[in-house]
Amino acid sequence: MTDILVINPNSTVAVTEGLDQAVQPMRLPGAPAIRCVTLSEGPPGIQSQRDIEAVTGPLCRLIATESAEETASAFVIACFSDPGLFAAREVTNKPVVGIMEAGMLTAMSLGQRVGVVAILPQSIPRHIRAFRAMGAMDRVVGERPLGLAVVELGDESRTQDRLLATARTLVHQDGADVVVLGCAGMARYRPMLEADLAVPVVDPTQAAVGFALTAMQFGLRPRRF
Amino acid sequence: MTDILVINPNSTVAVTEGLDQAVQPMRLPGAPAIRCVTLSEGPPGIQSQRDIEAVTGPLCRLIATESAEETASAFVIACFSDPGLFAAREVTNKPVVGIMEAGMLTAMSLGQRVGVVAILPQSIPRHIRAFRAMGAMDRVVGERPLGLAVVELGDESRTQDRLLATARTLVHQDGADVVVLGCAGMARYRPMLEADLAVPVVDPTQAAVGFALTAMQFGLRPRRF
Amino acid sequence: MTDILVINPNSTVAVTEGLDQAVQPMRLPGAPAIRCVTLSEGPPGIQSQRDIEAVTGPLCRLIATESAEETASAFVIACFSDPGLFAAREVTNKPVVGIMEAGMLTAMSLGQRVGVVAILPQSIPRHIRAFRAMGAMDRVVGERPLGLAVVELGDESRTQDRLLATARTLVHQDGADVVVLGCAGMARYRPMLEADLAVPVVDPTQAAVGFALTAMQFGLRPRRF
Amino acid sequence: MTDILVINPNSTVAVTEGLDQAVQPMRLPGAPAIRCVTLSEGPPGIQSQRDIEAVTGPLCRLIATESAEETASAFVIACFSDPGLFAAREVTNKPVVGIMEAGMLTAMSLGQRVGVVAILPQSIPRHIRAFRAMGAMDRVVGERPLGLAVVELGDESRTQDRLLATARTLVHQDGADVVVLGCAGMARYRPMLEADLAVPVVDPTQAAVGFALTAMQFGLRPRRF
Amino acid sequence: MTDILVINPNSTVAVTEGLDQAVQPMRLPGAPAIRCVTLSEGPPGIQSQRDIEAVTGPLCRLIATESAEETASAFVIACFSDPGLFAAREVTNKPVVGIMEAGMLTAMSLGQRVGVVAILPQSIPRHIRAFRAMGAMDRVVGERPLGLAVVELGDESRTQDRLLATARTLVHQDGADVVVLGCAGMARYRPMLEADLAVPVVDPTQAAVGFALTAMQFGLRPRRF
Amino acid sequence: MTDILVINPNSTVAVTEGLDQAVQPMRLPGAPAIRCVTLSEGPPGIQSQRDIEAVTGPLCRLIATESAEETASAFVIACFSDPGLFAAREVTNKPVVGIMEAGMLTAMSLGQRVGVVAILPQSIPRHIRAFRAMGAMDRVVGERPLGLAVVELGDESRTQDRLLATARTLVHQDGADVVVLGCAGMARYRPMLEADLAVPVVDPTQAAVGFALTAMQFGLRPRRF
Repeated sequence: MTDILVINPNSTVAVTEGLDQAVQPMRLPGAPAIRCVTLSEGPPGIQSQRDIEAVTGPLCRLIATESAEETASAFVIACFSDPGLFAAREVTNKPVVGIMEAGMLTAMSLGQRVGVVAILPQSIPRHIRAFRAMGAMDRVVGERPLGLAVVELGDESRTQDRLLATARTLVHQDGADVVVLGCAGMARYRPMLEADLAVPVVDPTQAAVGFALTAMQFGLRPRRF
Repeated sequence: MTDILVINPNSTVAVTEGLDQAVQPMRLPGAPAIRCVTLSEGPPGIQSQRDIEAVTGPLCRLIATESAEETASAFVIACFSDPGLFAAREVTNKPVVGIMEAGMLTAMSLGQRVGVVAILPQSIPRHIRAFRAMGAMDRVVGERPLGLAVVELGDESRTQDRLLATARTLVHQDGADVVVLGCAGMARYRPMLEADLAVPVVDPTQAAVGFALTAMQFGLRPRRF
Repeated sequence: MTDILVINPNSTVAVTEGLDQAVQPMRLPGAPAIRCVTLSEGPPGIQSQRDIEAVTGPLCRLIATESAEETASAFVIACFSDPGLFAAREVTNKPVVGIMEAGMLTAMSLGQRVGVVAILPQSIPRHIRAFRAMGAMDRVVGERPLGLAVVELGDESRTQDRLLATARTLVHQDGADVVVLGCAGMARYRPMLEADLAVPVVDPTQAAVGFALTAMQFGLRPRRF
Repeated sequence: MTDILVINPNSTVAVTEGLDQAVQPMRLPGAPAIRCVTLSEGPPGIQSQRDIEAVTGPLCRLIATESAEETASAFVIACFSDPGLFAAREVTNKPVVGIMEAGMLTAMSLGQRVGVVAILPQSIPRHIRAFRAMGAMDRVVGERPLGLAVVELGDESRTQDRLLATARTLVHQDGADVVVLGCAGMARYRPMLEADLAVPVVDPTQAAVGFALTAMQFGLRPRRF
Repeated sequence: MTDILVINPNSTVAVTEGLDQAVQPMRLPGAPAIRCVTLSEGPPGIQSQRDIEAVTGPLCRLIATESAEETASAFVIACFSDPGLFAAREVTNKPVVGIMEAGMLTAMSLGQRVGVVAILPQSIPRHIRAFRAMGAMDRVVGERPLGLAVVELGDESRTQDRLLATARTLVHQDGADVVVLGCAGMARYRPMLEADLAVPVVDPTQAAVGFALTAMQFGLRPRRF
Repeated sequence: MTDILVINPNSTVAVTEGLDQAVQPMRLPGAPAIRCVTLSEGPPGIQSQRDIEAVTGPLCRLIATESAEETASAFVIACFSDPGLFAAREVTNKPVVGIMEAGMLTAMSLGQRVGVVAILPQSIPRHIRAFRAMGAMDRVVGERPLGLAVVELGDESRTQDRLLATARTLVHQDGADVVVLGCAGMARYRPMLEADLAVPVVDPTQAAVGFALTAMQFGLRPRRF
């Protein structure tokens, strides 16, 4: 039994550090280690469909190598667009979990009406296609963008304000009773949001690490196709 | 951090023992203990809607007590009809996971077309209502009964033969690429089925323990309503 | 041919009296009598999932007795959560109708976009699960709570004001062209609402009595499972 | 309070006589009379989309006249294609019920998986459009044609054999737990089918008379649009 | 190879002239001619379900004649209610395209969330039934009426203002990323709307001419039933 | 006005020649030229998710170049997995059409129940995700694989036999009333299949060229996101 490898497919190390901190509660003495790495070939941020499909190659190479060398026993792709998810499953017979898929499925166990916070408005149609593809769209009551430029995400205070305002609209206006953070690396805002909203708030990377551990421990292998 | 309590809501201890064995891979040195108990007030088997709703009272009392005394930090209701799931969430603010819900959501991360093996044919309409209620029905390509009387389940050889025949029909005729065992306590047949079918086979109690651990470690609380 | 038994599963006699008045137009000289009774074992009001499942036992006993003694030929469970509906069908081979199910199906014959008035906000997720379970969710454009505490329902003037405000939002903002009153015993507000809104307003108990009479007269028996 | 007018929109009097017999159990001493009439301008049988839309004019004139003269208080259009249903609602403010709509909604209260027997294979795509339009398609597990020419329907023995064979396939192969007869005038086969199949069998005209009576007695008016 | 016949099923020649102008870009030297005609038997405007079904007869006769005389090789029914669409397919084996169907399918290739501008509010429930019947409803995020009386449509300036206001609400509030003009003859407003909204705006008659040309050139024949 | 560029994203020239022949009927004297090209960087066949995402880069570069140089005015991606479709829309503001999307939408205008012939069984889960993502799944009654290895596709006689057998199962057993060929370059089998099956058979590349011409002539631009 080796590591769960959490891959940040963009090249921004600060995001990887956020992931590292987020998954801390799953680091148990006798449990698999959780190693968070940065995909150096990735762009600074994944913002377009081209960005998504461009990381598939290096992502699959990384996963194939770690899988062959038995240095990892399960993989988490830590970007809410689930880049390369189905391709990666073709290069390893170990579990590969996408954070969007895991985040949405976890939310479906916590509330009836899922609200999603997106970073950028242009990601929403892509997410909607993904929610429909996985059959989760009937559970989604709204997805709303944060309304911040990517560079502004470094400003924690502004980010917190916008997260709160966006999530409040999802809950109080759209009727969401569970909220999913539609991005990687925002787990630290969960307590503040849950205290204000009184609904569960899902960090999708945390959810995905849970799926990876379960799949690994019980020997569940996703289908390659 | 205390135990994950897995409750067998029927009074048949042999089933509880099967659960105990099934969840073994999640018993990690530094992780929460997993304690499997039998609901002594339950019927020998849960076969009707009345059976399901009759265990809600004792189940909620057990959960309320363990929750108040802090002897358990998360609960799994280990019957594929998810008896008392939403009622139990009203008596504790700790995670309560139903194995049907967790089993189906886990299957949705492993394949595109879910096939379900039911024990009894009369459970199928009830399961269909539940799959529709949770929005999973679009992913289900078939549910088929085992064709065995409950007393015959003790005969492992017969059970294995019928499981194999039923799951083969789901995969080869209905097109399932992931199979869910629609009952508690059949995890031991997974390796045999996966070897024959070449698709992942989900034991819902194993899946539920994964959900419980994730919810517990990351502080995810399902909505009470 | 004996009675249609309308059962108020809560113990509040005033509600039963409201039901009695509501079903009056179906009391025709040559038709089955309609008898409205109070389930004395029920709670004063059914507000939680535990309340719902707690009445299943006494409700089934009442139905089993009246069915065996041939003192009733059809049963209506007059609470919008349809408590014990599927369990009750296991104890009699006579028709058992739930007012939620009948109210929603009737609304589907009267308009294209159904709006529902709930008493309490916490009932809405439960109703949504039920609408999805029966496949009616695609027809629902909104469900909104009355915004009154249960004790305030005794104040007819306040109740009327809130009903009107809630239903107007469903019609004018959500686009409902038929409204269902998501509770038992509010039929007397129908004329006022229909006059104001110019859309049909369904009292679910009235709808259920219609289903019961049809099933009884034509010998339609619901499936036990 | 005047009649419920059941209109056979084809000109075949034998069909009208079948309707007349089918609705007999709803003729109660104190209840509205049920009058079954033949639309003399209709074709011998309604088999094509042109047939359906061609009867809209005369059907609306009949309904408008009876409505204006107060000789009928509710209308049933007794053809499973629900010809002229939404047009008729524009010419009267009294309830107009289509037997397809009422038959399907009634079936949804009796079982989870609806099977439909069609007379002609070419009607099935039309029915599917209608089931989808009303949001009932998720509940339909199969529709199968009788495999008889219209002229052969006069042969009761052959019709009974084909009905039985078709309904058995719906129940035993497609998993239907309630069957709808997808045509008018076949109520007399219900007892035979129910005895053989052990599932409820819905005659849509009987169901529609129930809806008409309920709507009439409780003053429910469908939306004109 | 003969004409594509675009039929305005109402008798207002100004609408036909609008169609004529709208389809101009598909008039290519070597391509089939596109001939726009007025159905003289039609009403001035098609506003009710009766209007829709009343034009089926003359529409089918026109199509049958032109089809038999080989003066047209494909037909477009240019009214957003698709009057007589399925009936017309029974009288010719040449392609018959409805503008609603073609407009919606075209929109589904241009954006993820379809918004529809209706002329009259009372058409919306009818459109919803049609969207559901064709399985497009999951892609529709809103339909909103123009809020103009039919006689006011002659006032281009008022119409333009109302179109803009309605489409802006669909895009900015409902989240539409493609807009369909839910009527015939408004193509001339497309450039103005697209410039303001920055989303594609579909004129359904233009879309339908595209479908007709494709079907004709590749020999695609819709099913008669 | 310049060319419609049809891109075969695999490197097999024989497939491109098949496309060239298939689109011939849309080559009209005054219409845009249709130019079919081979993506030389593509693999011999696109069979895996990695293959699909690997062609996105070169495909986008080709489209960006031809778009910038104004040597093409619309693009068709001629592989049934629609590789790079949403990425390509980010590099040009000209129409980009995927043959899967266009083929399915065209089929939805020709029949009620769509059947799809896949080449390889492992493509089916991927197609199902795509059909769900676009909201077309409710119209699909079956997808079945040809049961031939890719190298066997060169044998026209065997291919024809398998196509016929597969399509017959879709029509006669699954109830399809329109069939889509789930691959590029099989248009030449359409006449044979249509003659045998009596249902329309859609070649998706032909359908896509129709969408491209319509979008181009009427100035319809898909959303970039």
